[in-house]
Amino acid sequence: MPNTSQTQDLISFLRRLRAVRTFRPDPVPEAALNDILEVARWSGSAMNRQPWQIVVITDDAVRQALGQLEGYVKHVAGAPLGMVLAMEGEGDANAYDEGRLSERIMLAAAAHGVGACIGWFAGPAQDEAKRVLAVPAGYHVRTVLSLGYPTEEAQQPHSKPGEARKPLSEIVHTNRFGE
Amino acid sequence: MPNTSQTQDLISFLRRLRAVRTFRPDPVPEAALNDILEVARWSGSAMNRQPWQIVVITDDAVRQALGQLEGYVKHVAGAPLGMVLAMEGEGDANAYDEGRLSERIMLAAAAHGVGACIGWFAGPAQDEAKRVLAVPAGYHVRTVLSLGYPTEEAQQPHSKPGEARKPLSEIVHTNRFGE
Repeated sequence: MPNTSQTQDLISFLRRLRAVRTFRPDPVPEAALNDILEVARWSGSAMNRQPWQIVVITDDAVRQALGQLEGYVKHVAGAPLGMVLAMEGEGDANAYDEGRLSERIMLAAAAHGVGACIGWFAGPAQDEAKRVLAVPAGYHVRTVLSLGYPTEEAQQPHSKPGEARKPLSEIVHTNRFGE
Repeated sequence: MPNTSQTQDLISFLRRLRAVRTFRPDPVPEAALNDILEVARWSGSAMNRQPWQIVVITDDAVRQALGQLEGYVKHVAGAPLGMVLAMEGEGDANAYDEGRLSERIMLAAAAHGVGACIGWFAGPAQDEAKRVLAVPAGYHVRTVLSLGYPTEEAQQPHSKPGEARKPLSEIVHTNRFGE
């Protein structure tokens, strides 16, 4: 495939994704939510197990209850929409698939101009979140995603140009580590 | 943001991503590789730790050696390009960030028409892969991604329409699990 302008638009879209942590109160439209869930549904997973359930949180009282739990989750109390991932099973492979799913949710939201950030419930708060959402045994709840349109402040860069990520020279090797 | 055609192009791009397991021998162009690494570099991670190193495998002998190890990794022997992820540290949070990174690598490849699939080294083969690539202690090697232009066969659907993923009704809940 030639290096078309469409390719460059996609690369630029992928490269630009940033976490958004403060949200305007406007709701996320139904059409955007549907697209986000459709992209989530088509996520790849090890052996195509699709080991996930998604609890969409539209009820403000539920978001407030979740946002008070321990962990980096306070942002969900200030977001118009939340999504909690309930994963079947445990372990590295499970967390890896959960990361793939989360990234796609953030990207699908970004395609609609909707910002998102990832939070994790800490330790015992994972079970408390399960109780709040009535998630049955056999599922592991770690992740809550907050979604909404970004505030002006959230759209400002948080670091100077070039400082937010390590340069390629510090993370890329060819054929052997260190080369 | 209105539901523009650009939004729908992005949603369609995200939704369509599929693993590609058989590759044409043509090399992945330098420009595509650079874009893939640039998107990888900008991946989000917990507390922006960026706990990853990427070993790009261009040497056929190295890919053959990796493809013979235990796990679902044989595909890398038949791909023109490989990428091995070396993660700093262990645990769920690490595997989750690794999943986010892997998904972005696959998507950036797809933006260039380059197919990709994820393989994991199994058990002791993780340490053998570290030896092949001279990865130092303190890093965990699980994932190898194979990259290349898809064969005709790889572009055919592997399942009947609608059968490759669970429907939304089986994975989405609102405010409470089961509702």
